[in-house]
Amino acid sequence: MGIAKCQGDFPVLDRLIDGQRITYLDSAATSLKPQAVIDAMSNYYSQNGVNIHRGKYYLSEEASDSFERVRYSVAQYLGAYGNEVVITKGTTESINLVAHGLNLQSDDVVVGFLDSHHAQLLPWRRFADLKLVELDSDGGINLDHYHELLELKPKVVVLTHCSNVTGNIAPIEEMAIAAKKACDAIVIVDAAQSIPHPHLRIDVSKIPVDFLAFSGHKMLGPTGVGCLYGKSERLNELRPLMLGGGMVDWVDVEGSQERKIPHRFEAGTPPIASTLGLGAALSYLSQISAEESRQHTEGLSEAIIQGAMERDYLQLLGPKTVKNRCAIGSLKIKGCEDLSDVARSLSDSYGIMCRTGHMCAQPVVDDQMDGEVLRISAYIYNTTDEIERFYLSLDELVTFLGLN
Amino acid sequence: MGIAKCQGDFPVLDRLIDGQRITYLDSAATSLKPQAVIDAMSNYYSQNGVNIHRGKYYLSEEASDSFERVRYSVAQYLGAYGNEVVITKGTTESINLVAHGLNLQSDDVVVGFLDSHHAQLLPWRRFADLKLVELDSDGGINLDHYHELLELKPKVVVLTHCSNVTGNIAPIEEMAIAAKKACDAIVIVDAAQSIPHPHLRIDVSKIPVDFLAFSGHKMLGPTGVGCLYGKSERLNELRPLMLGGGMVDWVDVEGSQERKIPHRFEAGTPPIASTLGLGAALSYLSQISAEESRQHTEGLSEAIIQGAMERDYLQLLGPKTVKNRCAIGSLKIKGCEDLSDVARSLSDSYGIMCRTGHMCAQPVVDDQMDGEVLRISAYIYNTTDEIERFYLSLDELVTFLGLN
Repeated sequence: MGIAKCQGDFPVLDRLIDGQRITYLDSAATSLKPQAVIDAMSNYYSQNGVNIHRGKYYLSEEASDSFERVRYSVAQYLGAYGNEVVITKGTTESINLVAHGLNLQSDDVVVGFLDSHHAQLLPWRRFADLKLVELDSDGGINLDHYHELLELKPKVVVLTHCSNVTGNIAPIEEMAIAAKKACDAIVIVDAAQSIPHPHLRIDVSKIPVDFLAFSGHKMLGPTGVGCLYGKSERLNELRPLMLGGGMVDWVDVEGSQERKIPHRFEAGTPPIASTLGLGAALSYLSQISAEESRQHTEGLSEAIIQGAMERDYLQLLGPKTVKNRCAIGSLKIKGCEDLSDVARSLSDSYGIMCRTGHMCAQPVVDDQMDGEVLRISAYIYNTTDEIERFYLSLDELVTFLGLN
Repeated sequence: MGIAKCQGDFPVLDRLIDGQRITYLDSAATSLKPQAVIDAMSNYYSQNGVNIHRGKYYLSEEASDSFERVRYSVAQYLGAYGNEVVITKGTTESINLVAHGLNLQSDDVVVGFLDSHHAQLLPWRRFADLKLVELDSDGGINLDHYHELLELKPKVVVLTHCSNVTGNIAPIEEMAIAAKKACDAIVIVDAAQSIPHPHLRIDVSKIPVDFLAFSGHKMLGPTGVGCLYGKSERLNELRPLMLGGGMVDWVDVEGSQERKIPHRFEAGTPPIASTLGLGAALSYLSQISAEESRQHTEGLSEAIIQGAMERDYLQLLGPKTVKNRCAIGSLKIKGCEDLSDVARSLSDSYGIMCRTGHMCAQPVVDDQMDGEVLRISAYIYNTTDEIERFYLSLDELVTFLGLN
């Protein structure tokens, strides 16, 4: 499989709405799903469908084996050990698990990014003193400010690998090494936006990362599943967020004994089918080389940046260079306060699906764009023609609405 | 549809393992899934697959509408308002959410049941002083002991509607009223094992229940989704367990404002497909009348009890009467310490899938059965012939293994 021919694998792209094909430009919110992922889940439900880790019978062992194979595939993809991968319901649970479990004090300093997702801001602010690294004039991370904040000896540093709103890719290797050198901070990486891209793969055996979080649904997998990677010594110290069945070795009327990692973090029946879907997504992605992924992303990014720069009526948030960014463009239409109508018209008149709002990253959107943005985000099934079509449609629309 | 003809709706029952059909007797762990549920999820992924509540475009609004319709179906089923239903990943998250969010003090008394699931024991023990209601001599809840414990003025009473190990159905209406009368305790119902059965439907507008928790996967729905019902005034007081995107109205560099209930409890992308599957499961179940459900359950329960009572080598945990129990039988084979081999032989030689272990309810299993049990649990797609076949197979097996 090559990226160029992958559209046929995504059945929703054959759907016509009002006789019109779909141009899907909201992959930073969630990716579309290839047939192989849909089939992995349907097959589980129609050929098995039972619970895991609980029964010494054929179907249960078959399901357990399939589930654990996904855990090991994820571990292998990250350069980790199997017991360092916790199955969660998504990035948000992964991050909350760590923030709750580290036993932070309210005056402990945690360093995050101004352009982080709310899931990276709110849990830390609840338990600690969160400081945000500002952006530099290009819209990337201000590394001087980061180094200043490291002088506060933060206990935790939360690095967003790729911003879901600026598309900027932070130099996490350099930043992680600096955090370790400055104060041996616990380094956490939000890889939700980067892990969908084979060229942005992180090898935790080579970078000093303590925890790494991501969701399945942005990387071609299903909703309702995600992962938390944690270095084994860190996971061993972490307090579970949820207690229940499957996470204890024994329970009596007085006490209980927690199971070893990663099981102690997986109370209750896990999202079995979604985990198998995540495994299928990882297999699908493994067919795309890092180089192909990079070239495709750069092509889309270039189209996004160029289209915005060519239009006086548009302002683009974040870096204007093709390198070190994902194909995400957050746009402001000058003089237009309410972008909802624009998004709706793009959808209903042109079949173009894109987002408006604060993108769950309101501090940076308010700071840099003074309000809401219109965001397009593209992935492996998108083409530069679609980006061009978006801009041409937007031209028509702003003319029609008298906005330029 | 009637229960008698429903087997054809469950594709896994057509599967042959070593040329043998499957006898699935582990529905208390998870139910099998009908084709309608599998299709609901596949259809979402192949015809939509996008995120909800986030985009003002056609596909997103279509997905959001479908998702919210499920919330309202659940609310309607429970006699609740739509904003009183929180979508979680399952019963375990639902219970942990409440236990974390109530701001309990370590000397607050919480009353639970000795035969509760670990998910009903461990979260409460973490935050409060958990007292367990003992069983009476028949294996049901000892109501005298319950009333004694109410004299301690518990802040919270956690009622397991149906035990996953004894099959006993507790008189929750009477118990909830008593808890309110005694000390206005917060009443929480674990409905994980009862909600799959239309005749055990709970109407929260008629019983003084503050919170009620269940999972989708035991009621014909998918894994990775569940619900927490909470009375709106209680939900309004509850502190969210997880923070992130989708649960805030605004965020700035200083603070944030949480959204109204139920959204403030649903940080991050929810399990969208699984929620739609849960909706399909509820539709499927609504085709079964309460009376049909009751008769079928009683027939299966009778076969389970009778088969156990007829055999000297077996001991059955819990009530021996057909009324007020589900079709769950936890068995001990006298003189057999390790039941794993029995379960494996039942699976591999007879195609019978059932559980061994402590059933995530170790206190009661240790107390009453002095070790592990072999559990069979039956549901709408099971027949009394299958229960009989289980016992005849067990007879052969224990003779072969020299256990009787």
